[in-house]
Amino acid sequence: MSIIKVVSEGLAHFSYFIANEGTASVIDPRRDCDVYLDLARKAGVRISHILETHRNEDFVVGSLELFERTGAEIFHGPGLEWKYGTTLVDGQRFQMGGMRLTALHTPGHTDESMSYVLHEDSPGPGSIAVFTGDAIFAGDVGRTDLAGKDQTARLAGLLHDSIHKRILALGDGVLLFAAHGAGSVCGSDISEREFTTIGIEKHSNPLLHLNKADFIDHKVRERLDRPPYFRRMEVMNLSTRPTMSGMPDPIPLRPKAFAEYQSAGAIIVDTRTADAFAGAHIEGSDSIWMAGLASYAGWLLPYDVPLLLVVDDPVHVEVAVRTLTRMGYDNIAGYLWGGMLQWCQSSMPFKTTRTASVMELKDMLDSNENVIVLDPRPHHEWVKIHLREAKHIFVGELEKNLALLPKDRLIASMCSVGHRGAMAAAILERNGYDNVVNILGGVSAWEAAGYPVVKGE
Amino acid sequence: MSIIKVVSEGLAHFSYFIANEGTASVIDPRRDCDVYLDLARKAGVRISHILETHRNEDFVVGSLELFERTGAEIFHGPGLEWKYGTTLVDGQRFQMGGMRLTALHTPGHTDESMSYVLHEDSPGPGSIAVFTGDAIFAGDVGRTDLAGKDQTARLAGLLHDSIHKRILALGDGVLLFAAHGAGSVCGSDISEREFTTIGIEKHSNPLLHLNKADFIDHKVRERLDRPPYFRRMEVMNLSTRPTMSGMPDPIPLRPKAFAEYQSAGAIIVDTRTADAFAGAHIEGSDSIWMAGLASYAGWLLPYDVPLLLVVDDPVHVEVAVRTLTRMGYDNIAGYLWGGMLQWCQSSMPFKTTRTASVMELKDMLDSNENVIVLDPRPHHEWVKIHLREAKHIFVGELEKNLALLPKDRLIASMCSVGHRGAMAAAILERNGYDNVVNILGGVSAWEAAGYPVVKGE
Amino acid sequence: MSIIKVVSEGLAHFSYFIANEGTASVIDPRRDCDVYLDLARKAGVRISHILETHRNEDFVVGSLELFERTGAEIFHGPGLEWKYGTTLVDGQRFQMGGMRLTALHTPGHTDESMSYVLHEDSPGPGSIAVFTGDAIFAGDVGRTDLAGKDQTARLAGLLHDSIHKRILALGDGVLLFAAHGAGSVCGSDISEREFTTIGIEKHSNPLLHLNKADFIDHKVRERLDRPPYFRRMEVMNLSTRPTMSGMPDPIPLRPKAFAEYQSAGAIIVDTRTADAFAGAHIEGSDSIWMAGLASYAGWLLPYDVPLLLVVDDPVHVEVAVRTLTRMGYDNIAGYLWGGMLQWCQSSMPFKTTRTASVMELKDMLDSNENVIVLDPRPHHEWVKIHLREAKHIFVGELEKNLALLPKDRLIASMCSVGHRGAMAAAILERNGYDNVVNILGGVSAWEAAGYPVVKGE
Amino acid sequence: MSIIKVVSEGLAHFSYFIANEGTASVIDPRRDCDVYLDLARKAGVRISHILETHRNEDFVVGSLELFERTGAEIFHGPGLEWKYGTTLVDGQRFQMGGMRLTALHTPGHTDESMSYVLHEDSPGPGSIAVFTGDAIFAGDVGRTDLAGKDQTARLAGLLHDSIHKRILALGDGVLLFAAHGAGSVCGSDISEREFTTIGIEKHSNPLLHLNKADFIDHKVRERLDRPPYFRRMEVMNLSTRPTMSGMPDPIPLRPKAFAEYQSAGAIIVDTRTADAFAGAHIEGSDSIWMAGLASYAGWLLPYDVPLLLVVDDPVHVEVAVRTLTRMGYDNIAGYLWGGMLQWCQSSMPFKTTRTASVMELKDMLDSNENVIVLDPRPHHEWVKIHLREAKHIFVGELEKNLALLPKDRLIASMCSVGHRGAMAAAILERNGYDNVVNILGGVSAWEAAGYPVVKGE
Repeated sequence: MSIIKVVSEGLAHFSYFIANEGTASVIDPRRDCDVYLDLARKAGVRISHILETHRNEDFVVGSLELFERTGAEIFHGPGLEWKYGTTLVDGQRFQMGGMRLTALHTPGHTDESMSYVLHEDSPGPGSIAVFTGDAIFAGDVGRTDLAGKDQTARLAGLLHDSIHKRILALGDGVLLFAAHGAGSVCGSDISEREFTTIGIEKHSNPLLHLNKADFIDHKVRERLDRPPYFRRMEVMNLSTRPTMSGMPDPIPLRPKAFAEYQSAGAIIVDTRTADAFAGAHIEGSDSIWMAGLASYAGWLLPYDVPLLLVVDDPVHVEVAVRTLTRMGYDNIAGYLWGGMLQWCQSSMPFKTTRTASVMELKDMLDSNENVIVLDPRPHHEWVKIHLREAKHIFVGELEKNLALLPKDRLIASMCSVGHRGAMAAAILERNGYDNVVNILGGVSAWEAAGYPVVKGE
Repeated sequence: MSIIKVVSEGLAHFSYFIANEGTASVIDPRRDCDVYLDLARKAGVRISHILETHRNEDFVVGSLELFERTGAEIFHGPGLEWKYGTTLVDGQRFQMGGMRLTALHTPGHTDESMSYVLHEDSPGPGSIAVFTGDAIFAGDVGRTDLAGKDQTARLAGLLHDSIHKRILALGDGVLLFAAHGAGSVCGSDISEREFTTIGIEKHSNPLLHLNKADFIDHKVRERLDRPPYFRRMEVMNLSTRPTMSGMPDPIPLRPKAFAEYQSAGAIIVDTRTADAFAGAHIEGSDSIWMAGLASYAGWLLPYDVPLLLVVDDPVHVEVAVRTLTRMGYDNIAGYLWGGMLQWCQSSMPFKTTRTASVMELKDMLDSNENVIVLDPRPHHEWVKIHLREAKHIFVGELEKNLALLPKDRLIASMCSVGHRGAMAAAILERNGYDNVVNILGGVSAWEAAGYPVVKGE
Repeated sequence: MSIIKVVSEGLAHFSYFIANEGTASVIDPRRDCDVYLDLARKAGVRISHILETHRNEDFVVGSLELFERTGAEIFHGPGLEWKYGTTLVDGQRFQMGGMRLTALHTPGHTDESMSYVLHEDSPGPGSIAVFTGDAIFAGDVGRTDLAGKDQTARLAGLLHDSIHKRILALGDGVLLFAAHGAGSVCGSDISEREFTTIGIEKHSNPLLHLNKADFIDHKVRERLDRPPYFRRMEVMNLSTRPTMSGMPDPIPLRPKAFAEYQSAGAIIVDTRTADAFAGAHIEGSDSIWMAGLASYAGWLLPYDVPLLLVVDDPVHVEVAVRTLTRMGYDNIAGYLWGGMLQWCQSSMPFKTTRTASVMELKDMLDSNENVIVLDPRPHHEWVKIHLREAKHIFVGELEKNLALLPKDRLIASMCSVGHRGAMAAAILERNGYDNVVNILGGVSAWEAAGYPVVKGE
Repeated sequence: MSIIKVVSEGLAHFSYFIANEGTASVIDPRRDCDVYLDLARKAGVRISHILETHRNEDFVVGSLELFERTGAEIFHGPGLEWKYGTTLVDGQRFQMGGMRLTALHTPGHTDESMSYVLHEDSPGPGSIAVFTGDAIFAGDVGRTDLAGKDQTARLAGLLHDSIHKRILALGDGVLLFAAHGAGSVCGSDISEREFTTIGIEKHSNPLLHLNKADFIDHKVRERLDRPPYFRRMEVMNLSTRPTMSGMPDPIPLRPKAFAEYQSAGAIIVDTRTADAFAGAHIEGSDSIWMAGLASYAGWLLPYDVPLLLVVDDPVHVEVAVRTLTRMGYDNIAGYLWGGMLQWCQSSMPFKTTRTASVMELKDMLDSNENVIVLDPRPHHEWVKIHLREAKHIFVGELEKNLALLPKDRLIASMCSVGHRGAMAAAILERNGYDNVVNILGGVSAWEAAGYPVVKGE
């Protein structure tokens, strides 16, 4: 028997390839599904089942692509109007040689959420592993806010029951494989730990220590950001649609062609790091560093215009394309051939962003300079630690809240590294703010320097 | 935090690379240690500690090689006269950022055997994982027979205590990472399962259900094969020695040069599968199929003469060399350029081995043909299932037991697939037996055909 | 500027990826066209042109696949009723930055055959390279027999003119890139040399030393095998057709399922080497060793029944599938899970083929044993060297010439290595010949042993 | 026969692996010689000869490393006091199956320079290829200035003779494989073309059109930069020395440890691009972008202090280490863990460099701002094109010419892309110039904008 976790970086999404004696099942496949076919080929097995834990909101699920390539049957949880696949009943079993997977209805994150429990026929009475989807993560539990405020308490109650009555009841020794890891927008406190068990979660996951009432209370008060692209994913994953055959290959565009696409309405996504963006960038670009693309593209980028990429190295185009297509952004017009310095060589104009250290910011504040500290991080980061002087506007909602920021003052954009600081600075710049500085190192550096912070939770 | 299991196939040995916040420890490194350096480079960490669970008998431990490349400190368990490294005390801790490894003395497999327990500082009171070396495997426990018959009962008692009082006490939810998987000569019943927990072992490992007296009794009666090369490994792993820098690169030898090496005393190891060996092979060769090299080379091959390789594809030379050098066989003169068919094209003589199916064997036996069925499998396989008609001589001890087999009768060599059948046939052939047939499919096929078998245990 | 030769092994077909300043052209793309997209991605260029040298008879040209993925325009030579693409005129130019490709009409191999000449704008008056398709190869020239016997002389005359008046006239220093290398069925004497120039060909290619009359005479007398699948390729390459998206992934079939497919009419292609085939194989299989698949599948395999694969290692399934789909064999039902020894373990019956050395064959012939030596090699190999005692029936035409071989005598099948000997033995076996031996090493070994041979040309 | 060009990027050095019938020769191996062993393993051949074209000045030749791994014999040209290897005589032959390499004494670049001519035994009278070392490159010829000014005319005369009487005499069709490609410091006008022939060079290489007197005159007037590390290479390559076993693995250093190394005298090499360096960098760093490391490290970096690396991605550490060790820089203390933004997060101070476009520079110059335009490019680039307003100080010699630059004026550093501009800006910054701007796009952008330039040659 072999269980292989397939990590989709950026989204921090985990799908699973489970093979035994000539057959394999895939749990929550991603859209660029070659990876499962490669695993099947190496293992000499046939992919026979596609098991979804839930509809998924943060990516386009690849069940249709994988079905097209393998003919494997698709299964989902009950209660939604799926346009494809087969609806499961609780307790349904999938035998794979001397091993079986049992579907366990575990509503809470959503009403149709399923877990899958793995047993071996031979060695004894117990379960071996459970695939929990978005019910439990290492150190966290699933969101219960996606169906709307009026549903959160009900779903939180269901989730508490699913966790305590169904999942934890499987026994401490059971391996727990969740659908997400640290960095996912589907949880705010997912651990960096790459593996866990029910026993480990029981002693280390603080949310499992709450009784039902406290748990519901906690979930109702929880405030997680909900990127606008979630809606589109929810619709796509319920429907049939044309499948994607192979990854799109955006073409290299010379500076003038690139500029023409921009003039015609295409949006530039500059995926370089904050320091490079500061040194030179194209006016009007969005700054979303590569590793942040999965978390922030869904906040900033529309679906109805072509995208243009600026990358630090053409080998990274593929990474950007994978990430964007997983989120349904299939219209990528091209990337800047030769990169930013080629742009400069072609005598095209560029912009820079001022950067400064926290020591310099401290000096500005101490000397009563007329500076506004803008903190663009998500709410759950803000509440943990921030500067007393800072004004919090989440970068995903910055563009519609510009009225809160005057244009005649210096704005110090400051996250915890520098990337979201650059993202905010880019938004400000293209909205006519010409006095912005990105504080590299952000709150982390501020705290490391021993300056005062406000800490929550 | 990241734990990566490094599998040395063939030996079915698992070493572990554990990285956290910039540093890494390696447990029981292998000799071809580039793999750990690659992992460290990718993770951006520095290897600082080399932790051995025990002396190891089945391979040359690579601590000295890894030390030479990284400067990492080497640690071993107490009670042996190590010529290098630092001896641990029970409970000794290694802090790696917000994580720590604690050495746990768990004697039994050997007196100095250590386990290592992994904790995180933050999430709660419990342990996360334990690295058990040869104390517990998935589905099995370590051998206690290596120190000699007079020590087995004492060591079995120690092992029972180590398992029950120290390891299982860590809690069901703790992940258990052992030093070996299925196929290792260090255990006869290791599960194919690639991961386990204390909880899973408690419900599925039958040896953990025995009380101490029964456990000791079981271990004393247990009969495991002990390849002669173990002695050499035990000596090597206690001593300093010249390290290996890079893998040896055996040279391609044309048929005539190959034959000259053989004439001068070099031993040919034919690593092809049993069917290819049957179709044509060089007289005097040993037949050890590639995947069986780690299990059987140590039975058949001496250390004091050069080895010659026959492979089905030159890309497999490297696999053979890795396996052999891990077992201390560093003197590999070369491999046959162009393979077996090139040998034939050069007009060199070759031999064939007759093959037959179990149906044909059944016919021979039924028709009272004068056939001896030779079963060359290890004792623990023999006791599980065999033919009533078969004579058991383990292939590792066949050459010194030839007196038991007459030369004037047809000998049907029959394992469970065909590879060890070929190995035995090759030994018989070069000892003057000219009437041997290899029964492909072996006992597995015999049973599948519905013919009678004797089953034990 | 960069020219990359993409080798399709087996077919020994060379396609070319030519990139300069942001754009790329591909000459004669293969059907599994990911390779060009990967090259384009790494080079940061856009594939804009697909240039065919001729219709191609030995493989399915991948222009439609590459067009679908890139939108690149397809160009062919004049005079055929292409259902897609654009027809070229002689001298047509394709500018790629400071480099250009000029189409050169060079009929002979076929009437529409084109070459492409590469120039740089800057460095001087001369050409840099020429892509000759099937006009000239290293050491050989293209076939002129494919349009039928009545056309051969006419085409040979055209080819002589194209070579001498157009290609050689480009100058000795011009690099020459042909469409095929050694091993292709499109030439019998193509050199192993991987690169050449017009100058090298002028001094080393014997066919370029012939005057027109002698050249025509030579080509008319030339006798090359023409696999029956050529007809299908010729039709496919002129037409539009559904494109192939991704490689097919044949599924692993357990022995019983595999046998059921065979019973239902599927054909087994055993791709293992001759020695392994000899040791054990499934009754009724075709034996075509992996490296010979491109040369011999088109002789033996029909297009209208599913194929089944036996491989020595599942990683080789992909190689077989690539080769077969390049030849239009898209209906591959599956491969034998676990390989031949798994078949044996499942107690399925198998056959063996007797093998012998040339020394043993010599003994048989000397002792007047009633043996027929069958030489199954192609005509052009036969005429170069063979045994006086041998009977020549090319393996591609063996099945329809069985009347020439009696069933009551021992047949010694003998090629030059052993693979085609096995192929012939397999055909004989399934047609009821039960006394066949494959002489490993074949004519090469026979000659190496110093036994008498007949040598031609 | 197979010829494989092994490209060492950065140095733009080409070594060659030539294999035929079981043996291989390597011409001018590099120090990290695994690549040749890998090629030999894949081809199933034994490396038997190491052939050097000359002593080499720009890298540490890897003959000793390759000898240690293979036992292959090392050969050099005559007239130097080699401490290892065998000295060749003109015309010496190396037979490799049906192919041979003939040593051809072709002095000129240096007195001992050899070429190697490849013949096949069979196909005809002519040569196939010539490996010319530093005698001829595609589009250029070797330097003749390295032995000192008084030797240049003599060596140029020898080179003209070697080229015309020996190399070009081999015939137009001969493939020409040189030791360097575009970007090497061993030639200023080497073509981007990746392949060439004698015929192509004869029509496109302008230096081959000069008669001997004009050629000598041209070479005497030629002014090429000579990095100071050349001296060290010349000494190393003549001597024996401890070989390098495996690449060094620099360790990740946290910001504080990194800063401590710097304080103790280690030199920071920031390998990021000019835009990222501009956005934030560590005070005192050298800026040498990754692709420029081979060309500029030898100008700026001493051999007697440890080096520290800043990289944009830890996967690039290996690239930097390869490049530096090829140039003899073996003392690399470590690299900055987490990169530049981690440095910022740790609240360490950083510097920025101002950047501007050529349009902005034009405005400054037009408005009579007190700006000095510094052109830090090598002489041969400067003479081709530069700004009339610019002052030329080659970056490799900037530090010793600072007296030429006042500290009280704005200095616009301006190369042709931005990287050497950043390099110069970094040198100025750490010497107390606090008013420096790097003009991104440089002369290329200036010209593209239509502003006036001075063009030479």
